[in-house]
Amino acid sequence: MTYAVGLRLSQGLVFMSDTRTNAGVDNISKFKKMFSWNVPGDRTITLLTAGNLATTQAVVSLLEERTKAPEDRAPSILEAPTMFQVARIVSAALKEVIEGHARGGQQADSAFHATLILGGQIEGGQSRLFLIYPEGNFIEAGAETPFFQIGETKYGRPILVRAFDADMSFAEAVKLLLVSFDSTIKANLGVGLPLDLQLYTEDSLTSGRIERVEADDPYFKQISEGWGDALKSALEQLPDFEG
Amino acid sequence: MTYAVGLRLSQGLVFMSDTRTNAGVDNISKFKKMFSWNVPGDRTITLLTAGNLATTQAVVSLLEERTKAPEDRAPSILEAPTMFQVARIVSAALKEVIEGHARGGQQADSAFHATLILGGQIEGGQSRLFLIYPEGNFIEAGAETPFFQIGETKYGRPILVRAFDADMSFAEAVKLLLVSFDSTIKANLGVGLPLDLQLYTEDSLTSGRIERVEADDPYFKQISEGWGDALKSALEQLPDFEG
Repeated sequence: MTYAVGLRLSQGLVFMSDTRTNAGVDNISKFKKMFSWNVPGDRTITLLTAGNLATTQAVVSLLEERTKAPEDRAPSILEAPTMFQVARIVSAALKEVIEGHARGGQQADSAFHATLILGGQIEGGQSRLFLIYPEGNFIEAGAETPFFQIGETKYGRPILVRAFDADMSFAEAVKLLLVSFDSTIKANLGVGLPLDLQLYTEDSLTSGRIERVEADDPYFKQISEGWGDALKSALEQLPDFEG
Repeated sequence: MTYAVGLRLSQGLVFMSDTRTNAGVDNISKFKKMFSWNVPGDRTITLLTAGNLATTQAVVSLLEERTKAPEDRAPSILEAPTMFQVARIVSAALKEVIEGHARGGQQADSAFHATLILGGQIEGGQSRLFLIYPEGNFIEAGAETPFFQIGETKYGRPILVRAFDADMSFAEAVKLLLVSFDSTIKANLGVGLPLDLQLYTEDSLTSGRIERVEADDPYFKQISEGWGDALKSALEQLPDFEG
């Protein structure tokens, strides 16, 4: 399992993903699910992945190869003129990998599937955020739906729906995401620390702040422990049932 | 879809269930999913149902028939000496119905499945709370897991996990459940108002308070609207991210 979220704020983009992968509960590993490409002054592109690890790693490798030898390989996400074109390249790569695996004689239904969140900005355009489906099509975040979640999305969704505000600061957004991740981690063993975080400031055209929130991170502990009490006092604020 | 919860408090048992059933999003109906049997001074039994409506209605009818003509039909949940025996009767009825439907030539995998929450008290014993699986086996709530959810459980789980306290009052428990249901209703169109509520006071051996929370219930509105603000101020209480 996985949990990853991309937020579109007025200030820029915020990405967070966990790092646990599992096949059953007795085969767990730690893998990065956040990938960034950056050409300072020109573009910054971030990808969050959920689903079959072989599929998502193959997609990233494919994009990397195309990126590293552009004269031989086209199209490259580092040459695409717009984020929309980047989304088309990434979704085509995803579709290609899934179809390739399924063609190999293995039939496992949705076993090779993966879902991606793609965000970034290219000079001359605004920052944009996409959700890419295993079928190879995608949707873009708009004013009404300014964030995307992939993987184990349900436990952490209510707090996002209630407290998200496109005008919030990065500091508030990270706090909100940590609460959402903490709720998910407490409920699903397939989602676990450490977490990867990226903060992209609109129009900066550099990757921005990228860091890893480790399992013993004191701020995460403070949020995780404080949230229980904060929720209880929030409940207390509301009037009791009399009927 | 459905959402239903049974809580085991020191004060007694609390049950809540929604009333929406759907097959797709364009075929929705309102059905009761909470059923109570009551012999004042002797026993009170409550059943919450989630899953295939034909299955759960058949189970309830089977239990009703057995209840209404006890001389002809055995075993009856109104004659079983303990809640454990009641759970065995109910789970046998559930298994029988599912197998009966599946035998009829229809093959729809888990299409006939249903999951039940059973709670109540019989004179001479404590109140007990069970979760009954479609396979016809069941588990009982204990001190570590003092509540059960069925149906669309994920959205409403984090607040239960964080704020549940076996020593809370009925008034607080109803408030907590309404918040949990509100989060679920906001996220899944298959869960909807009105809600059925039952409050059973330990050792009272009467059905206790049973009522319906309608869509325009002023208290539910107050909770639903107030919870957004309460959550935001709970988040504000926590320190912002600096890193």
